[in-house]
Amino acid sequence: MSEVRVAILGASGYTGAELVRMLAGHPEFRVTVLTGDRKAGQPLASVFPHLGMLKLPDLVAIADVDFSQVDAVFCCLPHGTTQEVIAGLPEHVSVVDLSADFRLTSLDAYAQWYGHEHKAPELQKKAIYGLTEIKRDAIRTARLVANPGCYPTSVQLPLVPLFKAGLIEAQDIIIDAKSGTSGAGRSAKEANLYCEVTEGIHAYGIASHRHAPEIEQELGLAAGQDVLVSFTPHLMPMSRGMLSTIYVRTAKGATAADLRAELSRVYAAEPFVGVLPEGAVPATRHVRGSNFCLMNVFDDRQPGRVIVTSVIDNLVKGASGQALQNMNLMFGLPETTNLAQQPLFP
Amino acid sequence: MSEVRVAILGASGYTGAELVRMLAGHPEFRVTVLTGDRKAGQPLASVFPHLGMLKLPDLVAIADVDFSQVDAVFCCLPHGTTQEVIAGLPEHVSVVDLSADFRLTSLDAYAQWYGHEHKAPELQKKAIYGLTEIKRDAIRTARLVANPGCYPTSVQLPLVPLFKAGLIEAQDIIIDAKSGTSGAGRSAKEANLYCEVTEGIHAYGIASHRHAPEIEQELGLAAGQDVLVSFTPHLMPMSRGMLSTIYVRTAKGATAADLRAELSRVYAAEPFVGVLPEGAVPATRHVRGSNFCLMNVFDDRQPGRVIVTSVIDNLVKGASGQALQNMNLMFGLPETTNLAQQPLFP
Amino acid sequence: MSEVRVAILGASGYTGAELVRMLAGHPEFRVTVLTGDRKAGQPLASVFPHLGMLKLPDLVAIADVDFSQVDAVFCCLPHGTTQEVIAGLPEHVSVVDLSADFRLTSLDAYAQWYGHEHKAPELQKKAIYGLTEIKRDAIRTARLVANPGCYPTSVQLPLVPLFKAGLIEAQDIIIDAKSGTSGAGRSAKEANLYCEVTEGIHAYGIASHRHAPEIEQELGLAAGQDVLVSFTPHLMPMSRGMLSTIYVRTAKGATAADLRAELSRVYAAEPFVGVLPEGAVPATRHVRGSNFCLMNVFDDRQPGRVIVTSVIDNLVKGASGQALQNMNLMFGLPETTNLAQQPLFP
Amino acid sequence: MSEVRVAILGASGYTGAELVRMLAGHPEFRVTVLTGDRKAGQPLASVFPHLGMLKLPDLVAIADVDFSQVDAVFCCLPHGTTQEVIAGLPEHVSVVDLSADFRLTSLDAYAQWYGHEHKAPELQKKAIYGLTEIKRDAIRTARLVANPGCYPTSVQLPLVPLFKAGLIEAQDIIIDAKSGTSGAGRSAKEANLYCEVTEGIHAYGIASHRHAPEIEQELGLAAGQDVLVSFTPHLMPMSRGMLSTIYVRTAKGATAADLRAELSRVYAAEPFVGVLPEGAVPATRHVRGSNFCLMNVFDDRQPGRVIVTSVIDNLVKGASGQALQNMNLMFGLPETTNLAQQPLFP
Repeated sequence: MSEVRVAILGASGYTGAELVRMLAGHPEFRVTVLTGDRKAGQPLASVFPHLGMLKLPDLVAIADVDFSQVDAVFCCLPHGTTQEVIAGLPEHVSVVDLSADFRLTSLDAYAQWYGHEHKAPELQKKAIYGLTEIKRDAIRTARLVANPGCYPTSVQLPLVPLFKAGLIEAQDIIIDAKSGTSGAGRSAKEANLYCEVTEGIHAYGIASHRHAPEIEQELGLAAGQDVLVSFTPHLMPMSRGMLSTIYVRTAKGATAADLRAELSRVYAAEPFVGVLPEGAVPATRHVRGSNFCLMNVFDDRQPGRVIVTSVIDNLVKGASGQALQNMNLMFGLPETTNLAQQPLFP
Repeated sequence: MSEVRVAILGASGYTGAELVRMLAGHPEFRVTVLTGDRKAGQPLASVFPHLGMLKLPDLVAIADVDFSQVDAVFCCLPHGTTQEVIAGLPEHVSVVDLSADFRLTSLDAYAQWYGHEHKAPELQKKAIYGLTEIKRDAIRTARLVANPGCYPTSVQLPLVPLFKAGLIEAQDIIIDAKSGTSGAGRSAKEANLYCEVTEGIHAYGIASHRHAPEIEQELGLAAGQDVLVSFTPHLMPMSRGMLSTIYVRTAKGATAADLRAELSRVYAAEPFVGVLPEGAVPATRHVRGSNFCLMNVFDDRQPGRVIVTSVIDNLVKGASGQALQNMNLMFGLPETTNLAQQPLFP
Repeated sequence: MSEVRVAILGASGYTGAELVRMLAGHPEFRVTVLTGDRKAGQPLASVFPHLGMLKLPDLVAIADVDFSQVDAVFCCLPHGTTQEVIAGLPEHVSVVDLSADFRLTSLDAYAQWYGHEHKAPELQKKAIYGLTEIKRDAIRTARLVANPGCYPTSVQLPLVPLFKAGLIEAQDIIIDAKSGTSGAGRSAKEANLYCEVTEGIHAYGIASHRHAPEIEQELGLAAGQDVLVSFTPHLMPMSRGMLSTIYVRTAKGATAADLRAELSRVYAAEPFVGVLPEGAVPATRHVRGSNFCLMNVFDDRQPGRVIVTSVIDNLVKGASGQALQNMNLMFGLPETTNLAQQPLFP
Repeated sequence: MSEVRVAILGASGYTGAELVRMLAGHPEFRVTVLTGDRKAGQPLASVFPHLGMLKLPDLVAIADVDFSQVDAVFCCLPHGTTQEVIAGLPEHVSVVDLSADFRLTSLDAYAQWYGHEHKAPELQKKAIYGLTEIKRDAIRTARLVANPGCYPTSVQLPLVPLFKAGLIEAQDIIIDAKSGTSGAGRSAKEANLYCEVTEGIHAYGIASHRHAPEIEQELGLAAGQDVLVSFTPHLMPMSRGMLSTIYVRTAKGATAADLRAELSRVYAAEPFVGVLPEGAVPATRHVRGSNFCLMNVFDDRQPGRVIVTSVIDNLVKGASGQALQNMNLMFGLPETTNLAQQPLFP
């Protein structure tokens, strides 16, 4: 393969920087364009000094990019701003969009949760939802992949196979999720200051977070019926990491052991998904900086209920890592290419 | 009143130190005895330098204490070691026990959860469960108060009044709780090292934590029927603070607004309990270092369900603060005496 | 004394909130005015939920305050904005200014370091520099106290007595200081986001921080000669706390023990300053939330040099606590009034 | 080259785990032995769950290792325990020792600082001090490399070239260093508990830290004269990272710009050392998880003085990363092999 020329749109945010980190040393992909409209003209190292040892192009404005010289685009722009940008890209460009703009297949649901009509409804129809382990085949031939949200990734990886196997019930699913602060992005908001976040926790977006419909859409597909979830995210004093503690009812008298066995079977050959042995507890720090998802299942004290927990790094498997995993597939590469970094602990 | 002579047994742990902090400047109570068997002979300042500006007695061994010269004992010893110590105290001494030893009224439940027979069953019958806002009258005349666990405090304060008002169902209660690391105590364990805790989260004691039966005992009393809870605690990268996110079914078609109204009514005159206005989210950092409990109720997306969240400082309202609140009552003092410290934020 | 009516100007920042915390329950001072121009009309609890259990006036604009009904003003406004505000206050009002506006006695130095001419030069002449332990008598009769900066407080408390005793040299003083992030205030800046601060450290303002001339002014007074310091502050991943590690040359062949003895003698009766025993290391966490300054002196490996370290809570002894200590004095109260809070550890 | 069989002795500590992380995917080195005497028989994943996705040998006792089947040994054992172990290894084995046991060339200095006679003095003579950028040629042909300490690495990388160029004075060097807590290792000590470390800072080992003689030995070699340093380390609330703020006198009227120019020249082609542009401040978070050292030089306010700051990840360039860099050289590989990981930020 000749070298793939990669553009990262929105490289001045955390997911953009994370892509740069993970693309460093990639044997086939080369970053040739980095955009950051407000910081156009600056070297990336002035925005992200930790990437200063790499040789990289300076930031430019999107309007100044010659996309005829680009093969692949990672789109790290804010939600709602992406539809028109992607609609304007030449047809030969492969796109992984990390925003929420193409995740909801229902235009009505999109309008309801995002407050405006979708601006690229034709393109939406062609977008493939990029949960790699579940949609691998479709991703291989996609031109536009809607990269999943971080919370949905952490929830779907354990629950989708359990639904497909008929081992859990669609009713009464409660998801109590905890996310690192990088999920809130790099914009300067009082609520995300160090002093406001450290050494504390609180829930946010209770019963109103936009990842709920995304979770329900995909779980519904797996379950073959509508799914309505309780979903309560919490902001954590950590930069990275996401833990979903999921309370579900089992079907057919299944136990935690049955569910664990099924997940172990389904994910046995997966390079990035680990089902822990009985009793071992997934911890976010054990996936930090890696593309891994670790999960386990525990019997609850309430009969007929189990507790599923799963952890990812929200910036990697929950965003940029999965994006690269998808782009690898879209270019016919092993999906693990340049994604073998082990977790950074401590 | 003549000065009350106070002994703190187990003053070399976090709850003991916290009592010393909160007793400083108390108008009626004076710390005259501090025990720490392994550190007997040392000044407290060598164990807890942050208390070095106070004039305090040196640590002594329990065996060396002349309890005839003591009026009040705060017992901060490890679970399981307290029963015989308290059984050996002279009758004139008022006791608040911060361990779990006298919390469970059922000796069978105690034996099942703690792995051995109770060693002071007669004393157990006389112990009053010290959730101050709920058991205030009984505490006033008690000689022995079993100070509640931190998790149970955070759960019962919102749920007990809702059960008493018949506004929630006893079935299908799910408690997802998050605690600061000080709850694990000061003993040197690898799992509690800075590098093992910072910037991460994990669940622990899933479906097996000893606070579950304590929660169920007290909720059952309020509900007038057996209560079985899902209870999943999580270890947080913060020293102090506890958040319980509680998923419950409402009765009688009640909404979050109804529940909030009831809690507001019940706690209107309480100095340490705050029911937040609609939409305001309790955060642990907003009670840090104080004896406050803040709570709120939110409608869930699932019909008939609500989400209750409550926060406390696990070392204060969850331990030493509530202990002082109780001891104040036991000596006929306003329960707020020396407990007016506002939260430390940031 | 009849109740003192207190206004806090700039109550929507951290030092303002900290004053509210420390004034709660004060036997003589009552907060009657809280200003916050951009948040006028809001209850303080909407800006600082941790203060929501207190009864407080809503925030108002400074222009709307009737200062004839105010006896004492704590001015927590940004540097450079304070001079005209204070110049406009009625003469009967006692003022403690927490900004840097009145700290430098040289108008030239002010203009040089702050980039503009001083706007209230007459008032400047009357301002008393409020390092309480050193300037106590002048503060008692002052109408306007310039509350010291946090770094200068941590440096001067150990060095001023050593200079006065002739035990250290004025040359070659190196101050390596570390501050918690609350020192940067609550304004929403990218550099102060949780993800940018946690788990890291860096120097800032190297050889150019505005606290250097303030330190030199006061050390020069104590030394009786010009003092020029190296001063390098560092931003720390902690909300509160300040450590100054100070490398000095001793005079007269004095040793660390000599210096410690002198400091112990000078501060023996001080309620807020502690000189630790030989070998004990001051730690910021041991003063967190308190008005204490702890210090010690260590022999260096380089002959004729010692290492002095001191710790304060930058928001308390470094700002609002010392401000209250000063205001207590200005109203003839014991300076410890309502300042007896012990450190919050862990 | 046929595959190099690698043993990591002491794989149950942080530096051992870090080596496993960095060796994953190495094209030439394969981990075939992991020792952990107290945890022999366990899979590494039970000790370090973050490495559970790798296929690795179980932990064994050192006594049970057949070193005839090993080509390279990374020795991560505690100081003082290493000399006899290494002395007992077969001659064909290449060794990088991460302990301090072979760093001091003077046996007298060793005995003085470590409290006992050296147990392998003949071996000591053959050991090469492994500061890669400075000793590269000697390392290539060494059989035993004494991997530098973390603090010495952060100090020597900027100062050695400045001494060699005659740009700084040997007198009056003051090193104020700040280290992440992982430097204290994984043993369970009260002082390293999360609650004891978070949100605070303190100095330790003032004028008595064992890295001082190591720094002086190597700086003395570069300076061509004896060097005596002030060295004050501080414990930081961060897992990884080390910042040295170094106050030095310049020679020949040299300025910060001169020193920066020299460092830039010397390190221009170095893959792991970055000299930042004027005014840019090295921050530990910008090297987290990487083998980089970033540095810069600043003019001090005191004439003739400059301030040098440098940052490394104490576990990588300060330990395991540099160890791998050295071992790569010892086997004739490019020293960057498998060391290209970019920093993990945020």
